Amino acid sequence: MTLTYKNLPTEFLEKELDSLNEKLNEYKKLNLRLNMKRGVPSKEQLDLSMGMMDVLNSESDFICEDGIDCRTYGELEGIPECRRLLGQIIELPPENILIFGNSSLNVMFDCVAHAYVHGVMGNTPWSKLDKVKWLCPVPGYDRHFAICEFFGIEMINIPMDENGPDMDMVEDLVSKDESIKGIWCVPKYSNPSGITYSEEVVRRFIALKPKAKDFRIYWDNAYSVHHLYEDKQDYLIEIISEAKKANNPDIVYKFTSTNKISFPGSGIAALAASPNNLEDIKRYMAVQTIGYDKVNQLRHVRFFHDLNGIKSMMKKHADILRPKFEKVEQILDKNFLNSDLISFNRPRGGYFISLNCEYGVAKEVVAHCNELGIAFTPAGSSYPYHNDPENKNIRIAPSYPKIEDLEIAINVLSDVIKYESIKRVLGI
Amino acid sequence: MTLTYKNLPTEFLEKELDSLNEKLNEYKKLNLRLNMKRGVPSKEQLDLSMGMMDVLNSESDFICEDGIDCRTYGELEGIPECRRLLGQIIELPPENILIFGNSSLNVMFDCVAHAYVHGVMGNTPWSKLDKVKWLCPVPGYDRHFAICEFFGIEMINIPMDENGPDMDMVEDLVSKDESIKGIWCVPKYSNPSGITYSEEVVRRFIALKPKAKDFRIYWDNAYSVHHLYEDKQDYLIEIISEAKKANNPDIVYKFTSTNKISFPGSGIAALAASPNNLEDIKRYMAVQTIGYDKVNQLRHVRFFHDLNGIKSMMKKHADILRPKFEKVEQILDKNFLNSDLISFNRPRGGYFISLNCEYGVAKEVVAHCNELGIAFTPAGSSYPYHNDPENKNIRIAPSYPKIEDLEIAINVLSDVIKYESIKRVLGI
Repeated sequence: MTLTYKNLPTEFLEKELDSLNEKLNEYKKLNLRLNMKRGVPSKEQLDLSMGMMDVLNSESDFICEDGIDCRTYGELEGIPECRRLLGQIIELPPENILIFGNSSLNVMFDCVAHAYVHGVMGNTPWSKLDKVKWLCPVPGYDRHFAICEFFGIEMINIPMDENGPDMDMVEDLVSKDESIKGIWCVPKYSNPSGITYSEEVVRRFIALKPKAKDFRIYWDNAYSVHHLYEDKQDYLIEIISEAKKANNPDIVYKFTSTNKISFPGSGIAALAASPNNLEDIKRYMAVQTIGYDKVNQLRHVRFFHDLNGIKSMMKKHADILRPKFEKVEQILDKNFLNSDLISFNRPRGGYFISLNCEYGVAKEVVAHCNELGIAFTPAGSSYPYHNDPENKNIRIAPSYPKIEDLEIAINVLSDVIKYESIKRVLGI
Repeated sequence: MTLTYKNLPTEFLEKELDSLNEKLNEYKKLNLRLNMKRGVPSKEQLDLSMGMMDVLNSESDFICEDGIDCRTYGELEGIPECRRLLGQIIELPPENILIFGNSSLNVMFDCVAHAYVHGVMGNTPWSKLDKVKWLCPVPGYDRHFAICEFFGIEMINIPMDENGPDMDMVEDLVSKDESIKGIWCVPKYSNPSGITYSEEVVRRFIALKPKAKDFRIYWDNAYSVHHLYEDKQDYLIEIISEAKKANNPDIVYKFTSTNKISFPGSGIAALAASPNNLEDIKRYMAVQTIGYDKVNQLRHVRFFHDLNGIKSMMKKHADILRPKFEKVEQILDKNFLNSDLISFNRPRGGYFISLNCEYGVAKEVVAHCNELGIAFTPAGSSYPYHNDPENKNIRIAPSYPKIEDLEIAINVLSDVIKYESIKRVLGI
């Protein structure tokens, strides 16, 4: 039976509040300094890729498969073996892949910039339009929303459930409104909700008939191989090949990178898209750069070889990450047994646990935790304009801290949630 | 005494043409395949930096000076030691420097994109203006002009002499026309003319009072340490510190990269500017990327250490490049002794020899050489819209070919120039 806090007797809640207050004062004396903000790999995880620093040395051969010396200019599209490797991660042949620099966010930004400056495949540049709008499944990734905000693109929240975005709403909006030019999707182990889009949702995506010809699905497959379990993995159907079959080949840009496979910030980013889209993007690339870092491309291929190399690396990451996710889930289960104060996801992959404070106290909780020396991602970050309409969502990033620090942080978080929720119920 | 071809007797010229024709037919039989197009380092030069592949290995420490682990996200501005190293190349303190990815062209492109989308330091975004114009000292770098063309920016040619651009013209235009927003400058060992701007020219640049508040000098110091000689080096005064002294601190963006110091395409690019400009650019960076490749930044610092390391590397490059430049100059001297057919520069650094066909036959010469299997940069490339108004300029890139190939190529080029020039004089 679930405990419904708003129905509990005032006297009980007041007593509970006092005892929580005492506990929180004790925490304060500990002078904690924990950072739970960032979905970044831990040092242990970084150490997994150290072998990458040995695969190229002064005795190495730097000639790639098509005979080009990787140490000099050229190969705007990326070296063939790297297009193949990233293609295996993306589940598409090398011809559909362009290799970029170290940041897939940068590729997304540049795609929007391209549309803004030149227009997508011959359509009017967005800078010449009065209004550009974008669909944002929520909760979502703050850096996506920041790109929209930067370009003055109006964002529309799209609710999500365990199957993905609300497709009735998506279909309705894109079919009517020509100013809607895109949608952000993290379709697998979504940031932060952890869900993977169902086959039906993906099929409804590729069947979209947007009023705007230059509408694109920004399919940020950041966590495609980032499973936590060997035996429980989400499955996502490959959107670009399905879109082609559905006669809607140009509707999607698909992004990925190796940033949480090898070293974050020193990885390889890639874009996959239809031939028409790639031609369009290459016009931009060819003016923008003399080409991307091919030595680093070669380094990745020499280290990982192929998808098996990637998979075996991801198992090692999972072995480090899994206990941390499970620890957070266990503590939350224990602390909120039969309580209606929170709900949270149990992701099978990715980097986040998404927690909802059901009494709408997310901001207060994060601020209070901050006072106690525990930094969480600012409440609202997972929503456009930093505005969580229900003030519920807190993104927990279990990857970086040590497991003993996680334990402290989630216990403090739990007590703070109880404290702030009771205050809300009591109206104080 | 100089031989003035147009004054020579027709009979002599016809005879000369016949003998040249024979020679050119002989060349044709050789089935030559030489590429003189690209200003890229040779394999020998690339080999100089192979030690860079050994400075980081799986046993290395990846912590940079401020304690950040270079293997993960963060440090948007670049790691401190890399800002210092690039600062030494740029001749400015680290605070004035931002580190980017592998391509300074990309940094320039992004600065223009930023101005186009958001405007420079609060000014109207260029996308909202009817007309944007740009000054282009000629001959210049084709990739600069391609950026303007891509953004629909109207380019205005500015003649250059051995001291730099025609500053009377620059001053006059920028003081009158608010739509002029920038000028491309390669101020040292200029591409392709090889000249270095005189102190007076730089001082007139920093004293400019443009009508447009968002006018910026794009100071592409690509060849700052790329000397060919120990004992004859050009000297360029440092523009940003001088602009500050002249109370005009925001007028210039200064760019550089290590691409012709270490590996082209796998180097480090940097921007130097006033604090106001850097703040403005960082707003863009912070949305565009999660940060640039810090492992590669660290690799460069561990390999070069400081400016002495850079200088000693550049001496080795010079030892490989110098004989090639001298060979081209010797052959041209010999083949055009006392002739008025060509003029060319004798650069003390950089990557190019700029040759003028004084009888206006550059296009014909390059096409003819192409037929004989020798590829030169397309005539006109060094001018906006690929339009060399006098059809004179050919850019010779001596760096890549072997010296014996250079010898053949320049001899063929010489005979083709003679042949095409005589045809021009004879009106055939």
